[in-house]
Formats: sequence, C-alpha cells, structure tokens
Amino acid sequence: MDAPLPDDSPAGSERHISRRALVRTGGLLAGAALTPSLLSAVTQTAEPAVPLDPSRVPGAPSDSLGTRSPFETPRLSPVNVTSGSTWTPHHELHGTITPADLHFQRHHNGIPAIDPAKHTLTVHGLVNKPLEFSLDELKRFPSVTRTYFIECSGNGGRAWNNPKPDMSPQVVDGLTSNSEWTGVAVSTLLRAVGAKPNASWVVAEGNDAAVLSRSVPMQKMLGDALVVYAQNGEALRPGNGYPIRLLLPGYEGNMCVKWLRRLEVTDQPLMSREETSKYTDPIPGGKARQFSFTMDVKSLITSPSYPGKLTERGWHAVRGIAWTGRGRISRVDVSTDGGRTWHMASLPNGALPMAHTRFEYLWQWDGRSTRLLSRAVDETGAVQPTADEYRRVRGDAPGYHYSAIRAWDVASDGTVTFGGD
Amino acid sequence: MDAPLPDDSPAGSERHISRRALVRTGGLLAGAALTPSLLSAVTQTAEPAVPLDPSRVPGAPSDSLGTRSPFETPRLSPVNVTSGSTWTPHHELHGTITPADLHFQRHHNGIPAIDPAKHTLTVHGLVNKPLEFSLDELKRFPSVTRTYFIECSGNGGRAWNNPKPDMSPQVVDGLTSNSEWTGVAVSTLLRAVGAKPNASWVVAEGNDAAVLSRSVPMQKMLGDALVVYAQNGEALRPGNGYPIRLLLPGYEGNMCVKWLRRLEVTDQPLMSREETSKYTDPIPGGKARQFSFTMDVKSLITSPSYPGKLTERGWHAVRGIAWTGRGRISRVDVSTDGGRTWHMASLPNGALPMAHTRFEYLWQWDGRSTRLLSRAVDETGAVQPTADEYRRVRGDAPGYHYSAIRAWDVASDGTVTFGGD
Repeated sequence: MDAPLPDDSPAGSERHISRRALVRTGGLLAGAALTPSLLSAVTQTAEPAVPLDPSRVPGAPSDSLGTRSPFETPRLSPVNVTSGSTWTPHHELHGTITPADLHFQRHHNGIPAIDPAKHTLTVHGLVNKPLEFSLDELKRFPSVTRTYFIECSGNGGRAWNNPKPDMSPQVVDGLTSNSEWTGVAVSTLLRAVGAKPNASWVVAEGNDAAVLSRSVPMQKMLGDALVVYAQNGEALRPGNGYPIRLLLPGYEGNMCVKWLRRLEVTDQPLMSREETSKYTDPIPGGKARQFSFTMDVKSLITSPSYPGKLTERGWHAVRGIAWTGRGRISRVDVSTDGGRTWHMASLPNGALPMAHTRFEYLWQWDGRSTRLLSRAVDETGAVQPTADEYRRVRGDAPGYHYSAIRAWDVASDGTVTFGGD
Repeated sequence: MDAPLPDDSPAGSERHISRRALVRTGGLLAGAALTPSLLSAVTQTAEPAVPLDPSRVPGAPSDSLGTRSPFETPRLSPVNVTSGSTWTPHHELHGTITPADLHFQRHHNGIPAIDPAKHTLTVHGLVNKPLEFSLDELKRFPSVTRTYFIECSGNGGRAWNNPKPDMSPQVVDGLTSNSEWTGVAVSTLLRAVGAKPNASWVVAEGNDAAVLSRSVPMQKMLGDALVVYAQNGEALRPGNGYPIRLLLPGYEGNMCVKWLRRLEVTDQPLMSREETSKYTDPIPGGKARQFSFTMDVKSLITSPSYPGKLTERGWHAVRGIAWTGRGRISRVDVSTDGGRTWHMASLPNGALPMAHTRFEYLWQWDGRSTRLLSRAVDETGAVQPTADEYRRVRGDAPGYHYSAIRAWDVASDGTVTFGGD
C-alpha cells in the first residue's frame, strides 16, 4: 500500500510513505483515497497535517462524539494541574456559554466518585416531614432552566496579589464560568417537606471528602435557589458536582455546594470552617466581612489580551465579559487611553440576570502603545471600582471578592500584556 | 503495596488486590489512601467502581478538561457510525442547549481537515469590491451571538417511513440540535463588498469534498444570516463546519453550509445538485416543492420515551422540545389519552425565536396503558399537523420536512415505546 512521494514533497529524503503513517498524522485523513496527487496535497509541518485543498480529499467519517479540531486545544489550566483549582480559558472563548469541560473547578478534597443510582438528597431539620430524594425523584418535580454564572469568591486574587505581564485572562479571572443549568427549585423541595415557622437558614452539605458545608439564608432558598442536575443540556460533570449541586444565582461559588447530599433546615448558621476561617474577608480596621455572599459587579477584557497580539493598525474589537451578582449588567464602558476617556460598549447579546454578558467596543488602533480598561455597571447602579477606590473600602488584602478594574497594555509592536489594577 | 481484602468482599476467591488494579477500575480512585477499611467500600459490579461512602475517600484531582462521569455515556448514534449522519440523544438531555460534541452531523463526503490559518472566505460576484477574508479578519467585525436550532430537512424521515416501537427520540428526531452561535452578520460582509442593485441571490459553497453549494435569497442574507465561528462558547468543531459555517436561522440544515469558503452574489439561483435532485419534496399531483427553505413547527416528547420506563404510578413530568423556523413557539399542548383531550404545557425557560423551546406538563399516571402526544403552535399561528392532515397536503413520501405529531405508548407495566404518527 505504498505510494511514491512526488518530487516536490517537502519530506526530502523519504521516497515512500505508507498509507498507515499518513493516516496516523493527525488522524484526519482516514478514509481518503491516497493517490500520488493527493499525497502532494499533504503539508509536512509541526501543525496537524491537512491537505492543501481539503475539498479534493474525501473527509473523515463521523465519530460517536464530535471532537475538537487538532488546531483548537483549550485547557482548564495553562500549566499542569496538581491543585484543587482550574480556570476557564476566557481568551479562547466567544459568546456567553462556557463549554462544560472548560468550566472552572475548585474543590477542597478532590472530586468524589459517585454512583447516581445510590446518591440521595436528604432534606430535614426544622421541617414537618423530612424526606430523602433519589435523583429520579428530583427529576419528577417541575424543572427550571436558567443561565447563570458561578464565580469563585477568590477569583482574581492571584492577579491582585502578584500581577505579572504574562498573565492571560484565564489566569487573571478564570475562576468564573457561565452555563445553562437545569434542576428543581429549592422552594419546591421545601414545600414538600414543610419548613417550620422558625426556620431561617438552610445548611447545605456536599458528599465530597471535605464534606463542604455552607449556611444559606432561608430567603435565598425560597427565592431563585436551585438544585441542578444538568449543565448546558447534559448531566453535570463530576468536577462540577455530579450528580447534583446547589445553585445560588449571584452568590459566591463555594456556596453552590457540589455533590449535594443534605439540606438541613435550621434557625441559625452552622459557622462551618468555610464561613469562619475561610471565605471571610479582612477589611481595614482589623475587622472582617462574614457571609459576604453576593459577587460584585465586574468585567474582564478577553481580547485583545495576553498572549494575543495585534498584527496591524486599524479597527479591532475590544471584547470581554461582564457580570454581577446583583442582577443584570446595564452598561460597560471601555477606555483605550488608560482611563482618560471612556466609551460605552455594545452588549451584542443583551444581558441576562446573574449571567456573563458580552461587551464589545470597536476601536481603531493607531499603532501607538496604550492601555485598555473596562468598567461594568449593574442595574442597581453599582459601578466597578478602580483599584484605589477598592482599596479604600476593602483594604489591600481582602482575601476574597476582588473586583477592581483591570488593565491591558498594548505595545507599539502590537504585543499585549496584563497591566494589573 | 498489596492490601488484604476484607472477608466480606464480593470478590470471593481473590485474597489480595493491588492498588494499581483498584486505581485502574474506572479511574476514579486515584489519589485515595487505600486502607483495608476503604477497600471494603469498593463495590465490585459491572458499573464503574465507586466507594460506598464517597465522602470517606479523598477524591480525584482536576484534569485539563472536565470529563463526563463514567455513568453518563451519551453518543451521537445508538449504533456504530459508518454513515454521513449522526443524531443528538435528546432523551438523555435537559434544558435547551445541545452540547457541541452531541450536535447532530450530516455531511455529504466526510469531514474535511482544515487549517484555520489557511482557510479564507471569498465574497465576490455582483459586487463592487470582491474580498477574501481570513478567519482573523472575520473576527474583527462586530460580532453577533444568538441561540438557534439547526435541523436537517430529512429529520424524522426514518421514523415516518418505517416506524418501530424501539425507536428512541434520538432515532425519531435526532437530526435537530440547538446552540449558542457567535459570528459576523452576512449583511456586514455584503456591506463591505458592496452588492450591486440587481443582486438577488447568494450562492454559498463549502470546502468539503462534496463542495456542497446552496443558493440563498438576498433578503435572508441581509436579514438574520450569520457566518459563525463559534458554537456554545468555543470554536466550531470539525463535524459542524470548522472553522466557519453559514447559519440561516429557521432554514433547513444543509443550507447552513459548513466549512464555508465562498459566497457568490448572483441574480439567480445556482440550481445545484442539492436544490434539484436533492432537497426537493414531492407532493401529491406529481409536483415537487423546491426551495422549501423554512422548517415547520414541530415538537418531540423526550421523556417519557423509549427506552425509558415509568417505575411507579403518580406524578411524572412529560417533557420535550418544540421548535419552528418561523419565529417563536407560542404554545405546546400535551395529550395523555391518545388525543382525546389536550392540556397546555408550561414553557419553563420561555421561548427564543428559531430555537429549541422546552415544554413540560405534569401528569398523574394511573398505571393504565395510554398514548402520549405533543402538538406545537408557533407565533404565526401554524399548528403542528396530525399525520392525516400532513399526508393530505404533503403526501405519503415527501422526502423531507416531516413535521406530523408523534405518539409514545405507555404500557401498564410502565414500558414506553414509539407509537409512530
């Protein structure tokens, strides 16, 4: 099954190439009838091999799943993952949905292995009739489908504490992601068990080895809180709470307890490790914020950004995402001159409450070095603060809830680097 | 590193089990400190191995992508794929978004291997200034992000021509999927090249080995037509047109030309193979519909459905998707008694134009055999027809555009089978 290489082949010394070797190259030529004329269409570079004219080569058959192009290799981390957190590569994404396999992950003692047929959710405590629900039973209740972001309350901490020019949007603010979630309203489950009049908190507990536990005010639980079993149309993935997680729109990510196994209705918060030693925010004056549930209004330019580069002068789209735990984004302003002047960006896909919102501003680059900034405003009137404004209120080392305006520096050669706050 | 198996282990004759063997089982116990007490928590079934109490075993670390649970194995086909079409497993999905790797595929000569850096889109013909755009150049234009379904015009044909009880929603109507798409408006590109006054059609051509070509009326191209480069937040996948495809909201799928390389502005349709011998619909009287672009109003019950089963009497959610090429779904009715009475379903996530819309109707099953039906209505007033109504207008063998009401039969033992039209 060998075929002679044409004389103009870039594979110089080799005179023959086997069909098997070709088929292996990138796995993309399977099924092709490899005549010499087709072989001449194969490029021999470090990039995945493709024919010079793809329309002259029969294509590959479908597989059981639609895999990514070998030219697209998004990853949850720019480095090898060994810790309990991974980040969404926002600089490689478009629109508003985060693909499920690129949703950030943060877990406190690894991802548990759970058999969905054996997993249950117990709802008990200050209730008339404690109940234990199987996954199938949860799916028999009326369902709710909504698009919400989840953001780790520590998102942005690394870039705040130790900013470096070679930080990408993934490293700067990759601990936020946005999905379409489907599940059952917590209020539906609380109606089923009958919460007692003095019930004011609900403690949510995970089935992971950290047994992560958080207390949620009853008001939130009776509002928009969900127990979700699906993300972007399919079952949750293990790194995001399979088979069920709590979803508290706009609240910090750790409260959206993954691998949820228990909801205990109480009349006081649990004061768990995650609401005392962790997830409290020191502020100036030796005090700390506790129960700082709601994520603040924020924005992130995703393009241009490191490691991208502007290759020519002229029109470029400054794009990014904005979000707030307090409702809808109402406006995003962009500055292309380091904050001297600001321009209202468009929100080309509208704005859903507690969801990533795309913004876009068309900018004509004149080839000179400059600094790009974005500033989000939400429907409550909250404005994303400058770093100085932020420090005056929250201090230098708040621990969590970083939300100050971020800068991206464009050099005259078109390179883009992270400019810090 | 061997540890003794406890006496009550179901793995009878084996007295020892190596850590390596355990770690390999399902790949889910990596990182666990395998003491004898933990070993006793390992179930030995054909299912993936999981600890009896996942919260007593340290979990797995994150990976570079968030993979699916071994208990969730959705596939684009219930059988091995060898043909040019694969189907979305709607009975395994929730909400409205179709995961990108589960978006149906239909191609006419395989999936081409394309280097995005070399791929261009040429816009020429009856224009003032023909232009060739690189992918980077397309991304510099203002972007549009919208959620739309794409449906193959042959969707439902197999179940129409040869209905069988063991057809799942995937086999019945799996050639429709729903995604958030991001790209540039075709009208933006046409403004850049300057279409001439007599321009009335645009021929779109793919870079696959079928060189699939379709003619699109100028009015659609100046309306909501997009050239998209992203699906559900990430780059298109090769099976769905990487790096760019045409997206004509509400029009039949084959017109949403994948691997788009050329838009030729003309004053007449091309009369290509795909608009003469294919994708025309014979109707009663020896005639055929040509240019039957718009997909009709339709619905599909996804649960209960084959191969699902009702395990007990009582409340069950009848769930499904509805869609129409003519705008928004305005109503879906469900019958749980074979069409004798109809009930309005809820649309728990609202309805976007030209997008899959979830419907849900809570039904109390009394344990008797019955037939479930769904009937969608769109904002133009179009009502999904019964099979008889459909046949009177479109005939027995229309070739494409099947849209009649479908039935699912529930037996008294809870088994559910496809009931045909």
